[in-house]
Amino acid sequence: MDNLEPKNDRRNFLRASTLLGAGLFIPKVNFASSGTFSANDNIHEFGKREGYTDQVSILISMMDWMRFVIIRDTRGISQEQLDFLLDENSNTIGAMLMHLAATERYYQIDTFTGIPKNKLGFGVEEDVWSAASNLGDSGRRVFKDKPLSFYLDKLNEVREFSKKELKNRDDSWLMESTEFFGNQPTNNYCKWFHVVEHESNHNGQIRYIKGRAA
Amino acid sequence: MDNLEPKNDRRNFLRASTLLGAGLFIPKVNFASSGTFSANDNIHEFGKREGYTDQVSILISMMDWMRFVIIRDTRGISQEQLDFLLDENSNTIGAMLMHLAATERYYQIDTFTGIPKNKLGFGVEEDVWSAASNLGDSGRRVFKDKPLSFYLDKLNEVREFSKKELKNRDDSWLMESTEFFGNQPTNNYCKWFHVVEHESNHNGQIRYIKGRAA
Repeated sequence: MDNLEPKNDRRNFLRASTLLGAGLFIPKVNFASSGTFSANDNIHEFGKREGYTDQVSILISMMDWMRFVIIRDTRGISQEQLDFLLDENSNTIGAMLMHLAATERYYQIDTFTGIPKNKLGFGVEEDVWSAASNLGDSGRRVFKDKPLSFYLDKLNEVREFSKKELKNRDDSWLMESTEFFGNQPTNNYCKWFHVVEHESNHNGQIRYIKGRAA
Repeated sequence: MDNLEPKNDRRNFLRASTLLGAGLFIPKVNFASSGTFSANDNIHEFGKREGYTDQVSILISMMDWMRFVIIRDTRGISQEQLDFLLDENSNTIGAMLMHLAATERYYQIDTFTGIPKNKLGFGVEEDVWSAASNLGDSGRRVFKDKPLSFYLDKLNEVREFSKKELKNRDDSWLMESTEFFGNQPTNNYCKWFHVVEHESNHNGQIRYIKGRAA
């Protein structure tokens, strides 16, 4: 049901993981202590990531895995596919890719408090970010004839900033809340999980539209 | 960019979270010790969930949040919308909802080792599960004229089984790997994250098709 999934029988490789069977909620833990645990760079094994606290490492695991899927699914896409409108109310694949970058930037502004918005321009005018955030007519107008590299470069620039900032934040930051979704207290973990699953939401549309583009 | 997001200014409610600033990777932790930390039942605050180990609680936080979105986005959907085919190669919204249940069942069979497949029928014939897994022609043939409650009931039955099983599993189980995605070692945490983001992927298509259904 997913072309990532293996067709062959799978041998079981249980990893010795007593070290991993640990708790989020133990008071006064020293984050540095986790540095003694070796990081894993296999994106299909969620866990500790170099340079991040333990729980932030799980968020990074999700971000990296999901982004790997987005990049895989846009590889080799044509200009015609990037700019294709399935109907007059649709968004192009290009506009949706830029929308993913704009969404992540929105959550940077919301959760990385103290960073002025103009420090998060990434070489793009504010009205272009606005078009990417809102999609619809403005998105259809602005995002045209741009190569895939334009969108992937912006996604990458925004992501690199997120990861740099997340290196300076810890597991307790993930649990900090503001009134947000449904005006309910919403913590940074939930907000950043949404940034990740939102990529999957639009990738479902990207795959649908790509398969129907001339 | 998401109708969950608040339009009003958001006051900042930092939660005292020193208890939360803890590590995944501390050896020989006693899971029971986390029972002293009160569970949170606000789906927008990812964290400890009653009856689950600490890291499994984060997975449950994701599963519950994502399912909340799916149910929200299908509320009040008509039979016509459930059975609508946007084109001859599309899947109906009904078939996609059943596909989400079939996908979760697939990962139950893969990761909840030792449970015979026939114990995971949930009152549905194997060929119906097969149609839901494969979608396409078989899905278009099988999933028609069924009310929303049929799909939501199956999603709920499958999810209840997952949660019952996850109560009996712990954080070290999440880190167990088999060769899976791309025939690389893939741990249960990655597999179950995929179950969650896969709901978002199809919800992107459900929202696209719903907006175009008669």
